[in-house]
Amino acid sequence: MAYFENVGKINYEGSRSTNPFAFKYYNPEEKVAGKTMEEHLRFAMAYWHTLTAGGTDPFGSETAVRGWDHLSGMDKAKARVEAAFEFMDKMNLQYFCFHDVDIAPEGSGLKEFFSNIDTIVDLIEQGMKSSGKKLLWNTANMFTNPRYMHGAGSTCNADVYAYAAAQIKKGLEVGKRLGAENYVFWGGREGYETLLNTDMQLEMDNMARLFSMAVDYAKEIGFDAQFLIEPKPKEPTKHQYDFDAATTIAFLQKYGLDKHFKLNLEANHATLAGHTFEHELRVARINGMLGSLDANQGDMLLGWDTDEFPVNIYDATLTLYEVLKNDGLGKGGINFDAKVRRPSFEPEDLFLAHIAGMDTYAKGLKVAAKLIEDRVFDDFIEKRYSSFKEGVGAEIVSGKATLASLSEYALNNEQPRKNESGRQEMLKSLLNQYILAE
Amino acid sequence: MAYFENVGKINYEGSRSTNPFAFKYYNPEEKVAGKTMEEHLRFAMAYWHTLTAGGTDPFGSETAVRGWDHLSGMDKAKARVEAAFEFMDKMNLQYFCFHDVDIAPEGSGLKEFFSNIDTIVDLIEQGMKSSGKKLLWNTANMFTNPRYMHGAGSTCNADVYAYAAAQIKKGLEVGKRLGAENYVFWGGREGYETLLNTDMQLEMDNMARLFSMAVDYAKEIGFDAQFLIEPKPKEPTKHQYDFDAATTIAFLQKYGLDKHFKLNLEANHATLAGHTFEHELRVARINGMLGSLDANQGDMLLGWDTDEFPVNIYDATLTLYEVLKNDGLGKGGINFDAKVRRPSFEPEDLFLAHIAGMDTYAKGLKVAAKLIEDRVFDDFIEKRYSSFKEGVGAEIVSGKATLASLSEYALNNEQPRKNESGRQEMLKSLLNQYILAE
Amino acid sequence: MAYFENVGKINYEGSRSTNPFAFKYYNPEEKVAGKTMEEHLRFAMAYWHTLTAGGTDPFGSETAVRGWDHLSGMDKAKARVEAAFEFMDKMNLQYFCFHDVDIAPEGSGLKEFFSNIDTIVDLIEQGMKSSGKKLLWNTANMFTNPRYMHGAGSTCNADVYAYAAAQIKKGLEVGKRLGAENYVFWGGREGYETLLNTDMQLEMDNMARLFSMAVDYAKEIGFDAQFLIEPKPKEPTKHQYDFDAATTIAFLQKYGLDKHFKLNLEANHATLAGHTFEHELRVARINGMLGSLDANQGDMLLGWDTDEFPVNIYDATLTLYEVLKNDGLGKGGINFDAKVRRPSFEPEDLFLAHIAGMDTYAKGLKVAAKLIEDRVFDDFIEKRYSSFKEGVGAEIVSGKATLASLSEYALNNEQPRKNESGRQEMLKSLLNQYILAE
Amino acid sequence: MAYFENVGKINYEGSRSTNPFAFKYYNPEEKVAGKTMEEHLRFAMAYWHTLTAGGTDPFGSETAVRGWDHLSGMDKAKARVEAAFEFMDKMNLQYFCFHDVDIAPEGSGLKEFFSNIDTIVDLIEQGMKSSGKKLLWNTANMFTNPRYMHGAGSTCNADVYAYAAAQIKKGLEVGKRLGAENYVFWGGREGYETLLNTDMQLEMDNMARLFSMAVDYAKEIGFDAQFLIEPKPKEPTKHQYDFDAATTIAFLQKYGLDKHFKLNLEANHATLAGHTFEHELRVARINGMLGSLDANQGDMLLGWDTDEFPVNIYDATLTLYEVLKNDGLGKGGINFDAKVRRPSFEPEDLFLAHIAGMDTYAKGLKVAAKLIEDRVFDDFIEKRYSSFKEGVGAEIVSGKATLASLSEYALNNEQPRKNESGRQEMLKSLLNQYILAE
Repeated sequence: MAYFENVGKINYEGSRSTNPFAFKYYNPEEKVAGKTMEEHLRFAMAYWHTLTAGGTDPFGSETAVRGWDHLSGMDKAKARVEAAFEFMDKMNLQYFCFHDVDIAPEGSGLKEFFSNIDTIVDLIEQGMKSSGKKLLWNTANMFTNPRYMHGAGSTCNADVYAYAAAQIKKGLEVGKRLGAENYVFWGGREGYETLLNTDMQLEMDNMARLFSMAVDYAKEIGFDAQFLIEPKPKEPTKHQYDFDAATTIAFLQKYGLDKHFKLNLEANHATLAGHTFEHELRVARINGMLGSLDANQGDMLLGWDTDEFPVNIYDATLTLYEVLKNDGLGKGGINFDAKVRRPSFEPEDLFLAHIAGMDTYAKGLKVAAKLIEDRVFDDFIEKRYSSFKEGVGAEIVSGKATLASLSEYALNNEQPRKNESGRQEMLKSLLNQYILAE
Repeated sequence: MAYFENVGKINYEGSRSTNPFAFKYYNPEEKVAGKTMEEHLRFAMAYWHTLTAGGTDPFGSETAVRGWDHLSGMDKAKARVEAAFEFMDKMNLQYFCFHDVDIAPEGSGLKEFFSNIDTIVDLIEQGMKSSGKKLLWNTANMFTNPRYMHGAGSTCNADVYAYAAAQIKKGLEVGKRLGAENYVFWGGREGYETLLNTDMQLEMDNMARLFSMAVDYAKEIGFDAQFLIEPKPKEPTKHQYDFDAATTIAFLQKYGLDKHFKLNLEANHATLAGHTFEHELRVARINGMLGSLDANQGDMLLGWDTDEFPVNIYDATLTLYEVLKNDGLGKGGINFDAKVRRPSFEPEDLFLAHIAGMDTYAKGLKVAAKLIEDRVFDDFIEKRYSSFKEGVGAEIVSGKATLASLSEYALNNEQPRKNESGRQEMLKSLLNQYILAE
Repeated sequence: MAYFENVGKINYEGSRSTNPFAFKYYNPEEKVAGKTMEEHLRFAMAYWHTLTAGGTDPFGSETAVRGWDHLSGMDKAKARVEAAFEFMDKMNLQYFCFHDVDIAPEGSGLKEFFSNIDTIVDLIEQGMKSSGKKLLWNTANMFTNPRYMHGAGSTCNADVYAYAAAQIKKGLEVGKRLGAENYVFWGGREGYETLLNTDMQLEMDNMARLFSMAVDYAKEIGFDAQFLIEPKPKEPTKHQYDFDAATTIAFLQKYGLDKHFKLNLEANHATLAGHTFEHELRVARINGMLGSLDANQGDMLLGWDTDEFPVNIYDATLTLYEVLKNDGLGKGGINFDAKVRRPSFEPEDLFLAHIAGMDTYAKGLKVAAKLIEDRVFDDFIEKRYSSFKEGVGAEIVSGKATLASLSEYALNNEQPRKNESGRQEMLKSLLNQYILAE
Repeated sequence: MAYFENVGKINYEGSRSTNPFAFKYYNPEEKVAGKTMEEHLRFAMAYWHTLTAGGTDPFGSETAVRGWDHLSGMDKAKARVEAAFEFMDKMNLQYFCFHDVDIAPEGSGLKEFFSNIDTIVDLIEQGMKSSGKKLLWNTANMFTNPRYMHGAGSTCNADVYAYAAAQIKKGLEVGKRLGAENYVFWGGREGYETLLNTDMQLEMDNMARLFSMAVDYAKEIGFDAQFLIEPKPKEPTKHQYDFDAATTIAFLQKYGLDKHFKLNLEANHATLAGHTFEHELRVARINGMLGSLDANQGDMLLGWDTDEFPVNIYDATLTLYEVLKNDGLGKGGINFDAKVRRPSFEPEDLFLAHIAGMDTYAKGLKVAAKLIEDRVFDDFIEKRYSSFKEGVGAEIVSGKATLASLSEYALNNEQPRKNESGRQEMLKSLLNQYILAE
């Protein structure tokens, strides 16, 4: 049965195509910087936004029109699996990601939930086999159910903590079974609403304990996925502990977990934290922690997580620039944690939105590769820091310099090296030229 | 000579006083939680805002009317020293803080600058002896001079780096001579304007090297002040590396510097980073990094560092709450890194503004002490997390629990402990009652 | 039947009371500035937050535990009416406000919806008669139903526009029947998601037409409530046309509607627009447009409408200051458009939250009245602008001055009047003294 | 004498040029939508940023290296005039804009200031004659001098108000003499720091009086320039009265000034107010108030006026889209109210930055023209609102509909017109295609 019968397979037609249901820039086979686009851009479908969500917002109920609207319970869950594989196939997506509650109803308790998960995972496994699609990552949703109102790993209720642990255990088992390449922790409500009722230290200690248990259990069952933490600064809680890349790294270092985790970075979370996405990637990259991406974009004038499909070519270019400089994302990929706007409620919009995002990233990849190939920024930077390659600069970098030696140098330095312009305007103009070039 | 002859000594007159030039809440001798207010609240005058600054803003020139306006060069610098001690005396401030450039003109080069500093430090030393005032901390300004346009520890110009090292060396020597209790590093331009021209890794490595050299040199000369880093997220640069407490901790941990540094936290910097001030204090406190405070406040609707005198009683109460929970600030203190508004240009405004700040902190101290004494939040929190004191909760905390043991527990837990309300509204009401109580 | 049997009537017990279920500052009978607190503070219960909402957020499902959870459809609607009057009675609230969909289920179409409304309005009318409670305002919800995904008055679908008109007509009739003192228009989705698909001019023209029709129909049926528009800058749409007070006034002036409308101002909407609440009140006041208040507060570090109960004494004081200067709100009142936090899910929290808000406003009223009585700011302001009372200043104000006359005056003005300090720090200190005074 | 001898005339070389000192997209002669680029894009140099400013920021002193640094007083002012014409000539800019204080030193009082202005205006007049360059607009700086600490038109000091009037009078005379096409009012400090000391009503009344006097005087002397107000929401004051386009329109309507003024809109001011630039242009356009543009861009993650050169192709495209839809800017133009970053301190950066801005706007113009030519958005919008062209929709638009007629329609409308998707993702993809197209 077809859930998206109005839309056929999305193919590459080139930038002159006027067919809205075609790729203009994403050509899976095209070689860029030594690999195919498909190899570079391990795009994934987010099960929740594409199959599960209905378009609600804090002031409005569901708008989405979907082929499985008439079903409920496990029937709906099964229909969604079918639809998921149909969508990935037509959309040319090789990977997908899900939370446990996206794929199966929670039922009346943990046992029923796990049983429902098993049933659906059977279907997913079959779908993966017949289609060749792969699981980029899975995770456990520990924030939607009222049980998690005070957090999961950071809850004040030990029974809730145990419940969360059970969900994670199941999640790791499902991940192993489906060959997930990563396993993600997004701390949905790991944070606080007010410090007045919060023992922050205990909460963070407990979170670290839960992560350690997960590391141990994965080892125990031989699940070798890359573990990822996804930072977000706020929303739904007033303060989320994994505020941004640097905060998460501080946490992992403190608890000796930094060898076991990398980061799953999301564009909209970056900007909510006051950073550009490329900043977060850079921070992760130079700390060896760049794991995977949640591709989307926020509205810079809105203060909440809008999870829009990424259509900004600047962001895409600078994102892929960091990815290429990182020599790719390894086991990671590019998950469209993005939702169609509430008034884009028709099934076709799911395709149009993914096309928008995939094309933007494809074009961004090409621009980034060319910028690197031409050493546009690399040459400028190399020259800019050249004073650290010799003389006093080399002594500084090698660790030989002391305050005394540098002070003496400065006091006797009659013709200090002049500063040179940072040339930001020129560099931004160059970036434009590469983006806008034929 | 008197620079503030229109204002006499500021004394405590109690909350019913209508004399604007009197303390309503700050009574240095009054005992709170076992110590005098003066012992709790080691208030410091910021030399730069009180003596050096003139009230400019990006769209306006100086407005301040000061008794030393007719002087220039070293004469002005000397007059400011006199005025500083007069002000501290009248204002009942026991501590002060300065950057090197606040106290002495830079002159034509490093040698002249150091010579000017020595001359002024002689005067300051005399003033300290005769008045008993103390130096809370000093620091080196490595951001105002055009030389530092690309940063100091993070500059791309090795000669500028050496210059910065020389300033720090001098600063440590001055600190030692004047018995400074702390030495502060605020990374004025340690950050970037655009990633397009920035080698972030080299810049951060170089910053760490400079900090290490400073640690070594302080040890060498026997200067045992507490070293402090002051986080700020942005301004003047687009991104400052010491974004917030957590980011700074990540940096210190990475480079093995966390044993040598604590944090000097500023209220306005906290809010620019998207945090409450009490959040930053809590993060520092549970990491053993709470060093000292820059007391001020921002305008929550403005996006730059307004450095207003702190007059918000909520902020003051929750700030002092963290300080009391930390058992005080040790060598640290409470520096008014705050400036009178540009239209508050008369000398009297300096007094009125400090009174506003000191009274607010004094009242905040009393409220915080009472909240702790009555265990208003402590009892609530203790009960809230009580499930981690026994049974499965105790196993989690002790590290005995595993995903498997917790999963089994959850699967068989037929009557899980119910969540209880977080009671935020009630707690905020209680806070109001303590603040507004007779 | 009692829905809130654990809580008794909330009485005034004074600020030393430790009973959380008592007023500390709100004493309905207490006289302030010539009227009782109850006369000044026409508090209203928001039906939606108190009776209808369940505590969802974009990442979580309902948490609220309510006595009517086991019911559905019209039974639930009826139970809520009973609960509403019980709550208002116990809470000492004399007024309430509702949207049509808060009180009655929409059913399968407009006819059923109107019929449901009629049934519930019968119950409400009885409740009002027997209790003496009054309807501060009602309104039509034209944003939750998917029908309104593109707006109501600003929709691109004429049939949806007609539907909205029908809801407003019914709302006006219900308002008349229940003696509503005001009728509110909040433009839930009157705005746009992207200009790329929007005819802003047609949308605003159509909105104005709808308002005109409402004015005409109210006149036709003899419904003399004050019409109110409630500004909000964003959320749910990317841009809402009634951005803030000034924007709404511009709209009303342009379409000649300014005589028929005043503003219903909400604190959290003010801060989302980049304004303090007192700013919005001042703008409305000096334009003769201050109608009614939605009392709540936002979190200044979060970018969405958190609708928290107002507990900030500064905001409350300055809000009531404007209200007193406006000689009250006339037909308007103070509606708690505020919701308990999601983890404050117990029925008791509804009471504790309203106590928090009412006490804060009561204390704010007393402080504001005293500030006015003592002419604390009035005297300062009068003196500050005194140069406009005589000489060249009087000529300016009277309209006699010209550029030529003023230029000549300035060119020959050898001793221009000096500026004096704005004394902001002192004024803020005074405000603190009045707030913290015994 | 040449002040920019290292740089020659900037010519169009096309997008493949690798010469940084060449236009890639701006070709003055190229025809777009029936006019040359130069006719569409009446670019202006901002005298203050290009000639007067030195690169200070709140934490740093001047960095700029300029050919007139060794001069002072009137000599410096004269050198700047020469440099200005050299720069405009080389840069291919036909217009310029200035504040009075940009071109001439204020001297010791108004008389000397006016005399200095006259001397410099003589030089400017000669330069204009010989070069053919034109004055897009001039204005009076009534915010930098300490005199204006409390505002100019909104000051509390009548003598300061008179001083401002004198400056405006002189400004109008200078504008007339130099044939300025517009005269601008930017309310540098027309706003407040705190409501506690502010009579907002008197201040706004006085501002309106000053504008009326200016209108009268211009008529008197036969100066027929377009008057423009430039909105800005905050900075330097906490709240600026001309917050945004809508607020300014409300003000002008209220005081009956809307026939005499249009708006000078600035991109960075728009985003500080929480709007996109295209939003502000749209608001102005549909109110017949779109006058002129201050072209720049802010950093969306920074909360102050960064005044960066515009390099974002999305913003430029949507800006020019509104301009084309407005049938151009009439007397207005595109003033680069933009400054080189502080570390871009070399004279060459002035050229590189203007090239960046002019090229971005040129490319934006071409994309916008093509979008309009192809009716990409127009067709979509026309179809989207088509229900208002006939039937009930037409009745609504024509003003015939009433609540009663629409309610009856809705109640009997058995098959209401279904909503259709807003297709935002597709439209944004189309925008990308037009921007990125060969």
